[in-house]
Amino acid sequence: MIAIDPKVETLRAQLPAVLGTAYFNAGSNGPIPRVAIDALVAAARAECEVGRIVPGAYEGNRGRNRRVAALIAELFNADASEIALTHSTAEGLSTALNGIAWRPGDEIVTTNLEHPGLTVPLCLLAHRYGVVIRYADIGHGGGDVVGAIAERMTARTRVVALSSLMWSSGAVVPLAEVTAEAHRRGAMVIVDGAQSGGQVPIDLHGLGVDAYAVSGQKWLCGPEATGALYVRRDRLADIAPTYLRYAQFDLSGYLIPVEGAMRYEIGEFYGPSILALEAALIWLRDEVGFDWAYERSVTLGRRCWDGLSEVPGVTVTTPRERMAGLVCFAVEGMPPQDLAAKLYERGMTIRYVALAPGPTVARVATGWWNTEEEVDALVAAVGDIASN
Amino acid sequence: MIAIDPKVETLRAQLPAVLGTAYFNAGSNGPIPRVAIDALVAAARAECEVGRIVPGAYEGNRGRNRRVAALIAELFNADASEIALTHSTAEGLSTALNGIAWRPGDEIVTTNLEHPGLTVPLCLLAHRYGVVIRYADIGHGGGDVVGAIAERMTARTRVVALSSLMWSSGAVVPLAEVTAEAHRRGAMVIVDGAQSGGQVPIDLHGLGVDAYAVSGQKWLCGPEATGALYVRRDRLADIAPTYLRYAQFDLSGYLIPVEGAMRYEIGEFYGPSILALEAALIWLRDEVGFDWAYERSVTLGRRCWDGLSEVPGVTVTTPRERMAGLVCFAVEGMPPQDLAAKLYERGMTIRYVALAPGPTVARVATGWWNTEEEVDALVAAVGDIASN
Repeated sequence: MIAIDPKVETLRAQLPAVLGTAYFNAGSNGPIPRVAIDALVAAARAECEVGRIVPGAYEGNRGRNRRVAALIAELFNADASEIALTHSTAEGLSTALNGIAWRPGDEIVTTNLEHPGLTVPLCLLAHRYGVVIRYADIGHGGGDVVGAIAERMTARTRVVALSSLMWSSGAVVPLAEVTAEAHRRGAMVIVDGAQSGGQVPIDLHGLGVDAYAVSGQKWLCGPEATGALYVRRDRLADIAPTYLRYAQFDLSGYLIPVEGAMRYEIGEFYGPSILALEAALIWLRDEVGFDWAYERSVTLGRRCWDGLSEVPGVTVTTPRERMAGLVCFAVEGMPPQDLAAKLYERGMTIRYVALAPGPTVARVATGWWNTEEEVDALVAAVGDIASN
Repeated sequence: MIAIDPKVETLRAQLPAVLGTAYFNAGSNGPIPRVAIDALVAAARAECEVGRIVPGAYEGNRGRNRRVAALIAELFNADASEIALTHSTAEGLSTALNGIAWRPGDEIVTTNLEHPGLTVPLCLLAHRYGVVIRYADIGHGGGDVVGAIAERMTARTRVVALSSLMWSSGAVVPLAEVTAEAHRRGAMVIVDGAQSGGQVPIDLHGLGVDAYAVSGQKWLCGPEATGALYVRRDRLADIAPTYLRYAQFDLSGYLIPVEGAMRYEIGEFYGPSILALEAALIWLRDEVGFDWAYERSVTLGRRCWDGLSEVPGVTVTTPRERMAGLVCFAVEGMPPQDLAAKLYERGMTIRYVALAPGPTVARVATGWWNTEEEVDALVAAVGDIASN
């Protein structure tokens, strides 16, 4: 038995979901801290008891939303005015992609490892505007990603759209280099941050990306239907709002959208869930510590990688030199769906990924809340299952 | 003192927010029944305790969403396959309006009484696609609405977009006649149902409208950030998805959206709030009874109208022959903002509407939960305030 870091033990007590199962699936939905649900329940009960329309309710809701935007901006090194709240990463990506004035024959470069939350909106652009979608085959993300993307770019490439941490391989993309290359050639970079936001450090101003969409319910441990879209402040003219809720307007059809990235917000939000996200973000920042969390996720990920790579019949596909807390692998002769089901029976929650063009793999997400013992037990269980 | 109908008294006990104030503002947000919040809180707590990713979670979420779509379809006489869940009426309207293949010079006819959730997306179409927006001046909605709209239509009118119950005047529009005229001239009808859905009977198949967007948090007494969009099944080719989440696709940029109106759903939803909306809808259907609710709202609305129209210095603007549960009025020499504030001090929650091109008015929403005594007290309070 391996001793548990007292800090980990204290924090785990605030995440009930990780106590009932070995919780290796923040890549789908993270565990929710008690403090977040308590905030949500208190607000939900108050809405029922007191009613939702009290003097100052609208101003209060706006102030609450902007506070959360500021927390997200702080986390990712952006300005609050560059952050719109969304209901999902897919919504954020659709907002960014639909905001561009496409011409037929314009091109977008993406990769073979993307989530349908990005791939489907890209296909829709092909259907609606005649945009050409070019896939860069980057394997599992371990090789020359920049070169593979650069090779697919042409003079008509207007956007490079990709994840910064691949849901289907666990690879952390060299995003600064991709961005530099794209910008050098006049293309914008729109990033699916569903897996990277809260799992690895993200410095948006440092990276220079043009848009970045993130989920609240994964590595940020918030409720479902929360998320954010970052649009760099000098891209407001390049990325127009498509679903616009707040603007000044006149009767002849002219309008001025609300300032900053707030123009991308599609009303409404469930207020108590925004308060829960706020509570989760503050808890992660102040009680957990993002830097500590990032470091621990990758340390546990490597431990898992190393363990699994020793198991006969297991092929780990995640590139170890570019990994964080997602470990993807295949067990010879066993569909990952079956493996995930067998592990669940043993009290371990992982998931599988099986969606073309991405690889078909089992996926372990090591969160900072996992223990070394849980990781070792998972490796042993995979070995046991693989040998039978 | 007027005796309270025992049914009303029993039901009011399930709506805590109407006990603390005379609650006349379902037009902004309705009161939430206990059964809805209990469902929400139980689900929110379970997500925290058990975790959100258990076997069958995705299928379960989809089944839950489709159950709620079916309840909404039943309420409005539509098929479940014609209903998409949304986060707001504005989202539904933006989805319908952005789904049309606009050409510069295409025209839309709307009215002077619309909410910015419709007006702003219309202005955006003017900006983005060169669509011409024509306003029909229908006053407060009491006169020849069909004629006023017909007069603004031309051969280039592709859509008539309007509310079926006006937020800024309380008028119930003769929607069947508007629709018949629009269809006769080859235009689609897209309806802002924020005020009508749950306040008055709506028979979508009977009306023949092409799209109808509704809010969950107003007269349906659900949580904020719930709602639905109806698209008539033979309009799937006319109204394309803009934010598409679920589709089959291939790598060369082709795709097939998920079947029916579900293609208009922008993921994700906050699951517990969908369960709360479900509980509210079932409670309204089975315990309250929609027909009884519709009838009682308009009866109380007329009582309020009649009372206010006797008050010196008060001008009631709602057309009595077309009213339901919204009563709009002006007090001579007093901005409606001040009146609403003074009434709130007396324990009465109303709101004001002050947004061009609509009129500036105070607005009382009489819900079935209000008592006759509350209505009379409100009228007396307005009289008292107006005379000082």
